[in-house]
Amino acid sequence: MADIATHARVRALDGDLRRRAAAVIPGGMTGHMSVNRLPAAYPQFYARSQGTRVWDVDGNEYVDFMCSFGPIILGYKHPAVEAAAAAQARDGDTQPGPAPCMVELAELLVDRVAHADWAMFAKNGTDATTIALMVARAATGRSKVLAATGAYHGSAPWATLRMAGVTPEDRANLVYYTYNDVASVERAIEQAGAADVAAIITSPFRHDAGFDQELADPAFARHLRELCDRTGAALVMDEVRAGFRLHHGGSWEPLGVDVDLSAWSKGIANGYPLAAILGRHQYAEAATQIFVTGSFWYQAVPMAAAMATIHALRDEDAVAVMERVGTRLREELDALAHDVGVPIRQTGPVQMPNLAFAGDDAAFTKAFAFSTAMLDRGVIVHPRHNWFLSAAHTDEDVDRFLEAARDGLEAVR
Amino acid sequence: MADIATHARVRALDGDLRRRAAAVIPGGMTGHMSVNRLPAAYPQFYARSQGTRVWDVDGNEYVDFMCSFGPIILGYKHPAVEAAAAAQARDGDTQPGPAPCMVELAELLVDRVAHADWAMFAKNGTDATTIALMVARAATGRSKVLAATGAYHGSAPWATLRMAGVTPEDRANLVYYTYNDVASVERAIEQAGAADVAAIITSPFRHDAGFDQELADPAFARHLRELCDRTGAALVMDEVRAGFRLHHGGSWEPLGVDVDLSAWSKGIANGYPLAAILGRHQYAEAATQIFVTGSFWYQAVPMAAAMATIHALRDEDAVAVMERVGTRLREELDALAHDVGVPIRQTGPVQMPNLAFAGDDAAFTKAFAFSTAMLDRGVIVHPRHNWFLSAAHTDEDVDRFLEAARDGLEAVR
Repeated sequence: MADIATHARVRALDGDLRRRAAAVIPGGMTGHMSVNRLPAAYPQFYARSQGTRVWDVDGNEYVDFMCSFGPIILGYKHPAVEAAAAAQARDGDTQPGPAPCMVELAELLVDRVAHADWAMFAKNGTDATTIALMVARAATGRSKVLAATGAYHGSAPWATLRMAGVTPEDRANLVYYTYNDVASVERAIEQAGAADVAAIITSPFRHDAGFDQELADPAFARHLRELCDRTGAALVMDEVRAGFRLHHGGSWEPLGVDVDLSAWSKGIANGYPLAAILGRHQYAEAATQIFVTGSFWYQAVPMAAAMATIHALRDEDAVAVMERVGTRLREELDALAHDVGVPIRQTGPVQMPNLAFAGDDAAFTKAFAFSTAMLDRGVIVHPRHNWFLSAAHTDEDVDRFLEAARDGLEAVR
Repeated sequence: MADIATHARVRALDGDLRRRAAAVIPGGMTGHMSVNRLPAAYPQFYARSQGTRVWDVDGNEYVDFMCSFGPIILGYKHPAVEAAAAAQARDGDTQPGPAPCMVELAELLVDRVAHADWAMFAKNGTDATTIALMVARAATGRSKVLAATGAYHGSAPWATLRMAGVTPEDRANLVYYTYNDVASVERAIEQAGAADVAAIITSPFRHDAGFDQELADPAFARHLRELCDRTGAALVMDEVRAGFRLHHGGSWEPLGVDVDLSAWSKGIANGYPLAAILGRHQYAEAATQIFVTGSFWYQAVPMAAAMATIHALRDEDAVAVMERVGTRLREELDALAHDVGVPIRQTGPVQMPNLAFAGDDAAFTKAFAFSTAMLDRGVIVHPRHNWFLSAAHTDEDVDRFLEAARDGLEAVR
């Protein structure tokens, strides 16, 4: 393997592309992969990827701890996934109807996820969360949805993080609670009117970008289930970010809490574009009543890739691998930070590391210094969004991370 | 080439898959590719596709006049598109940021589409129409949108065809006009309040499924432009269904009418999943203010495929090819129908054929009989949605169509 990039990264082609992009794309880049609000050290454009490594357009190599913000759960170009995708592509992809693999994938998801009796497919995480709420509304005949303040459930007008382009009516049926705060959910139900609550949407843990992560309190999870049972609302789990990184089934299965509907995307096809909505029997009829679709939702290649991904996850014991590597990363980074004398906080599940610096400011000055130094040492992390491990991350990758992190922590100090 | 399927189609595997699907997918299949409401003759599952031919899971071969409801604009597995996609896939697809081809594609779209000064990318047609309206609202600070009654602009709650799962608030900012009816637009503006109209959304022609198609009256198109200029609303063109089949740029360019924002998907990447929003300079700043994104929106392979598609469209003079083949199909089908004695109506642009039978009933009994006979003769058309030609359709395909259509018309008679 080629040597990891050093401090002397060339950045010429990235700069050229950014100048061209600025002329034909608003802000030069839109969405969550824009580096406009990140340190100047971040490359915007990528040329190549393999395993846990990515190369920017100037040929600089990085160990990637972002996994493209989640989709890459087995490493880039996983052989079994690529083989399954290529075999399906030789036959057909977008066709006048689905391929047999859609049925096989639905069967596999229903087998793996305890609450799931059925599956529907879409393309974006936002499609999946939006459809889950439409199903809940169709099933209950109710309008209101409870969501946690600050939670990200997609970028449709009802969910996006900024209010530009959003009308008050887009949010009129949302009532907010505080994650892990049972009393706040009770208040939200009262505010909405228990008889008009169609759904409570939540996430496996609190993973709001820019904040410490917070694992679900099992009592909170059980209480949401009880509240839904009491009010007749659907419990909707947004698995888009965490799905299959915490558990080989639904993320709350280890807590013994079944949800009614769940929304999946990101990791389920190792980078191929796919989303899924899973649900219990009693919501199946409502799912036939709504009309949702997309030109590419029945593409066969991403479904074949998803089958291979889900099989490989279990074959490789992926959750355990990510837990082991993530635990080592967390413990040794903690020790290193103590060593260097920089107080840090690491929160949430180790498979989705989240780092914050004690006393950092609203501009994330310390986190920016850390991630800049990491990039200059050939490691990609994000200063204010959780990172993602994949089943491909090895002890060697963690070694690289820790070597770079010493520079990163010293930059902060 | 293998012989086209005859009346004696085997349907065993399709039936098996449907039974399995019914157990794990609501209704056995969701969305626009479901055959649940179509004649029993329609296969649900497809095994393979090449050029203008598709094979169902039982090995029956069909000449496909649906092009997967539009995405296939150059024929299945167009060599240049597949080569471009494969080359990009060898490097990378979903990565921590876009590949250089995103910039090249934005430049190409801005070059080809007259009104476009910039491009943003997404995955679904629904993403593109929704984002265009968000940009219009962010730019104007207004809420209301005018849309044509019965027009399909996507399957998000604000746009979908059925009201199950939709709340009144999802539609609260929509006011409806009648396509090609200037007076109805004036009334809608008055109803909405001219000072609160953010956008008028329209389509290149009226293509509501289940109805005759209607070309845009040039005076209507010019009037929409004038109304937007007068009121400060954005003129938004939904090019998702028609884009690049009527013209190598925006569909209203031949009418001399520039729009402010346009939404593209389906045909722009010959079946690879991609959507684009194009806009004029004065909307670029608003486009940077909204937050919209998706996990797979910056995938490189569909963008490389789109570049190859758009180049091939012009290299092959695709619009002229589709017009020539479509004109022959329309004229000879008209003659044949006259011959057989079955009165028909063919409406809209010849590249997107639309057939209706005089005196057909609300259950589309005649159209069902026609399309069933066509399927049994190895030709796929739809009984109540427009069809799509691609640049791959040849005179031989039209010959096959006309041979089958004689049986189809006789079945109707």
